Amino acid sequence: MKLMYAPQSPYSRKVRASAIELGLADDILLQYARVIPGTPNEEYSQEINPLRKIPALVLDDGRVLFDSTVICEYLDDLAGGGRLLPLAGRNRWAVLTEHSAAQSICDALILIRYETGLRPNERLWSVWVDDQWAKVWSGIEWFEGRAGALDGEVNLAHLTLGSALGYMEFRYPESHWHDRFPAVGGWFRRIGQRPSFRLTLPHDMAPTGPG
Amino acid sequence: MKLMYAPQSPYSRKVRASAIELGLADDILLQYARVIPGTPNEEYSQEINPLRKIPALVLDDGRVLFDSTVICEYLDDLAGGGRLLPLAGRNRWAVLTEHSAAQSICDALILIRYETGLRPNERLWSVWVDDQWAKVWSGIEWFEGRAGALDGEVNLAHLTLGSALGYMEFRYPESHWHDRFPAVGGWFRRIGQRPSFRLTLPHDMAPTGPG
Repeated sequence: MKLMYAPQSPYSRKVRASAIELGLADDILLQYARVIPGTPNEEYSQEINPLRKIPALVLDDGRVLFDSTVICEYLDDLAGGGRLLPLAGRNRWAVLTEHSAAQSICDALILIRYETGLRPNERLWSVWVDDQWAKVWSGIEWFEGRAGALDGEVNLAHLTLGSALGYMEFRYPESHWHDRFPAVGGWFRRIGQRPSFRLTLPHDMAPTGPG
Repeated sequence: MKLMYAPQSPYSRKVRASAIELGLADDILLQYARVIPGTPNEEYSQEINPLRKIPALVLDDGRVLFDSTVICEYLDDLAGGGRLLPLAGRNRWAVLTEHSAAQSICDALILIRYETGLRPNERLWSVWVDDQWAKVWSGIEWFEGRAGALDGEVNLAHLTLGSALGYMEFRYPESHWHDRFPAVGGWFRRIGQRPSFRLTLPHDMAPTGPG
């Protein structure tokens, strides 16, 4: 299998961390893909993902799977199933909803990054940026108050939230959110010690590529 | 169950169409929720979804499920499972990937709408709008060339694509995409005749609410 990824992408990190947690990392070749809004990448669009999103997983028979959530679920299935996401029952819907919240925090951070790091400054709309930040804080506060969401075996929601928060610390290290959300902050420090996070720290590949 | 929704929202339509296809529509009470970027809605944020997204499903025991994909999968499970999404096997990953493509088309359309209908005009960045439109066309072209993706029993990818294209026709009726993509255009006309689509046509609830 070949994972099209970027080292700064939190969605890529979520998949890579999943592969490590599942013991599948050695089966996956990593291939860097550069996708930036407004910069055409016809080859990627034609051959991998028409929406130009990363990550995408290219299987050995040529099939391509995306997005990150689909890939994580596929890897979980390859590893036997039910390890990162309960296969059925009440807890499946809880983890999937927590995953959606984490994913939406990540989406908001990426929209902030596009607005402040890619868009010409005179086109920046502060109402939009403030609104995305409000979603980020509201989302973290939701986890702060949600008993049990961060407990137990590592699951897909945890890996997604950890990747989102790691991206926030990478791009916005001045945000000092640990003081405001001590439960999530403590959890984030603990999950950050796992190999799945230590081995996937975000970094920029090229000096010109926001993302 | 109570579905927090808006009548113009393609994500809400996807859930409502799923409920109709599954024979569950009578079990779901619809409740309008107004969520607009930059307009606070503390009640919705605190009680329903901290990320202020619609739709959300409030179960009779008080649990809240989101986002639209999670709700559709939950409803499918309630209806016996495997009807809108194969429960296992190769076809599951195909449908989930097709669903991701359709969802990303929808996401691009919503970003276009926020940029052109909500953001002050002097803050509009045409590079961004053009890039999102390029994704929409590239995504539709992918379906146009993807043998089998639109065939067979109605599935979650179909309902999502139909909702996205219906939103495009609602907001951007001048886009004349049927001529460029005749296979998808013909399919869209056919699926539009199903009750699940005829009964969920998008419309604005309030004159001031873009979305």
